[in-house]
Amino acid sequence: MSELFTEIERPTLLLNEATARRNIQHMSGKAAESSVRFRPHFKTHQSASIGEWFREVGVEAITVSSVDMAGYFAGHGWSDITVAFPANLRQLEALNELAGRIRLNLLLESAETAEILGRKLRYESAAWLKIDTGYGRTGIPWSDVRTLREVSAAVERTRSLDLIGLLTHAGHTYGAGSTSTIAGIFAETIERLGQARDVLAKAGRQIELSVGDTPGCSIVSRFPVVDEVRPGNFVFYDLSQLFFGACTEGDLAVAVACPVVAKHSARNQLVIYGGAVHLSKEAVLDAKGRSIYGGVALPTDGGWSKMFTSSAVTSLSQEHGVVQCEPELFDRIQVGDLLMIIPVHSCLTANLLGRYLTLDGDWLEMARL
Amino acid sequence: MSELFTEIERPTLLLNEATARRNIQHMSGKAAESSVRFRPHFKTHQSASIGEWFREVGVEAITVSSVDMAGYFAGHGWSDITVAFPANLRQLEALNELAGRIRLNLLLESAETAEILGRKLRYESAAWLKIDTGYGRTGIPWSDVRTLREVSAAVERTRSLDLIGLLTHAGHTYGAGSTSTIAGIFAETIERLGQARDVLAKAGRQIELSVGDTPGCSIVSRFPVVDEVRPGNFVFYDLSQLFFGACTEGDLAVAVACPVVAKHSARNQLVIYGGAVHLSKEAVLDAKGRSIYGGVALPTDGGWSKMFTSSAVTSLSQEHGVVQCEPELFDRIQVGDLLMIIPVHSCLTANLLGRYLTLDGDWLEMARL
Repeated sequence: MSELFTEIERPTLLLNEATARRNIQHMSGKAAESSVRFRPHFKTHQSASIGEWFREVGVEAITVSSVDMAGYFAGHGWSDITVAFPANLRQLEALNELAGRIRLNLLLESAETAEILGRKLRYESAAWLKIDTGYGRTGIPWSDVRTLREVSAAVERTRSLDLIGLLTHAGHTYGAGSTSTIAGIFAETIERLGQARDVLAKAGRQIELSVGDTPGCSIVSRFPVVDEVRPGNFVFYDLSQLFFGACTEGDLAVAVACPVVAKHSARNQLVIYGGAVHLSKEAVLDAKGRSIYGGVALPTDGGWSKMFTSSAVTSLSQEHGVVQCEPELFDRIQVGDLLMIIPVHSCLTANLLGRYLTLDGDWLEMARL
Repeated sequence: MSELFTEIERPTLLLNEATARRNIQHMSGKAAESSVRFRPHFKTHQSASIGEWFREVGVEAITVSSVDMAGYFAGHGWSDITVAFPANLRQLEALNELAGRIRLNLLLESAETAEILGRKLRYESAAWLKIDTGYGRTGIPWSDVRTLREVSAAVERTRSLDLIGLLTHAGHTYGAGSTSTIAGIFAETIERLGQARDVLAKAGRQIELSVGDTPGCSIVSRFPVVDEVRPGNFVFYDLSQLFFGACTEGDLAVAVACPVVAKHSARNQLVIYGGAVHLSKEAVLDAKGRSIYGGVALPTDGGWSKMFTSSAVTSLSQEHGVVQCEPELFDRIQVGDLLMIIPVHSCLTANLLGRYLTLDGDWLEMARL
């Protein structure tokens, strides 16, 4: 086993840098082939160091999920940032500060918010109308012609907001059930964005289209029609994405090393130091229809083994995890050993653990927001 | 509305100090009436400042859920600490450091771990056998006479471990369904701990009994038979405990103030800045059988209103929450307003938000572990 792992005392987020860089190159290459802007979502990794790996493949524009995260990356040299979250009117001061020093892209979905931002922003900002293409979380429904016209007119009346395009997050690809369904949602999303653009298009007016979700962007081989793609999770992937069919096991770039603290042979269960405050309570259904909180692998010289597909983290308390084991795995483990847990949702796990240990032994820090 | 709230820009954990202090006094008083040691679990609040409120009612011994948390509270003057988690053999150095300066209480459930700790610990520590009285997570099954004898004998063979008692966490009171079921589990837990003690009792040998869960400790009026109680969550309570019947709405001491960022009148939904990285993905079933992620109240002069019982946080993304609203609530809210969200599991929410804003305007810091 890698010497690196002998030092691990507590749940530790391991990062396979080579895999993450390969994931970045793959998605970046696919965007280049389709001649679309690659504006990756940095909410997954939240790390300036990992951001540099994107810069090395030519990325200049990024996406984040909060104003504070935009401030962190602006402080690390990123000058074109989309806050992919409805504009928060309680952070006008921070928005003004950002708009004064970077190209700030904001999401709007109501005339009222456009009007308030138009009055309060002292620097020009890029505005994107958030469009709901079927997910049903936020945005103007793609077919709501009246609201589309009303909000775009409100943006145009302002001096500080410049209408750039239409942006959507087709979050319903998560859990769509099959790769063909995901591909179908991706195609439908583009079709619907196109319909919304037609409502607003005038002679000579450019309206860009931006799409984002990792399942869709991973499964399709080309990005037709759109002007930019904003996937984020693909940098690490995770157990959910694997189950969706959005990645292969070899694409998984993170695992949580967890000390084993108890063995229960009567029920083939291991108890690990690794609970809800490390992995998050995000669950996914396995092939047996059970809610599980992580996949299970063993440490190896190079990182971690293939997963034991009949074993899983089946319950979580604040600090404890219970691993239901197949006997071949159970028998190989002693109290004090490490198990490698593949997180269900790498964004939430990274957010909880706060830093990365690469397989080369380097600690990479994240934003402390 | 309180002036305090006008400054709030992002999801903020509000703490009603008066309510928390009353919860502490109530539980402390109940322990005193039953003449049992009150060793509260500090994993809920993880704050040295809040720890002082316990000291003011005479608490001297505490419980934590990790070695690192023990280190934090030892650094704030606590000298009798139980780490209520199976002893982690990968943190022997930290355990030794702690055992050298405080009365350290460790949990054991196997002869192997007892033997290793006995060899490696340089300072005497208190040992508790972790007993499983029916929860099925960790511990020696209460009726497993052979293992009880084997582990206690292993502890007694060591020089550094001093066998103090039997400790259990009856986590199956969570979601037991009714207060009478919870009370039944509490009684059964004590009965089973007593049976395990009978197995180990010899002439003149003292074996203490320690129980812990908040639902059980809240619902019963007296703590018979046992020597100590270790509830933790009761300091704040939360939506789960309210649904279990372990508290009343007036006992809820924390809420998360969340900016409203979008309104969707077609479906009576508000979108809040407040997602899985603030509230946690812990869900509870409401009266309609829906999984919900938080209760909903409005800001008031003194804190927050009673909950709107037909409204709830019905889905969470990383930063977004969707609130399904009753019309009376929906119509009163504008984008930019605050909603007060009652967390489902206050321990996990506090861990994510990392500090408290009291209703008097003071920031209370937590451990950064």
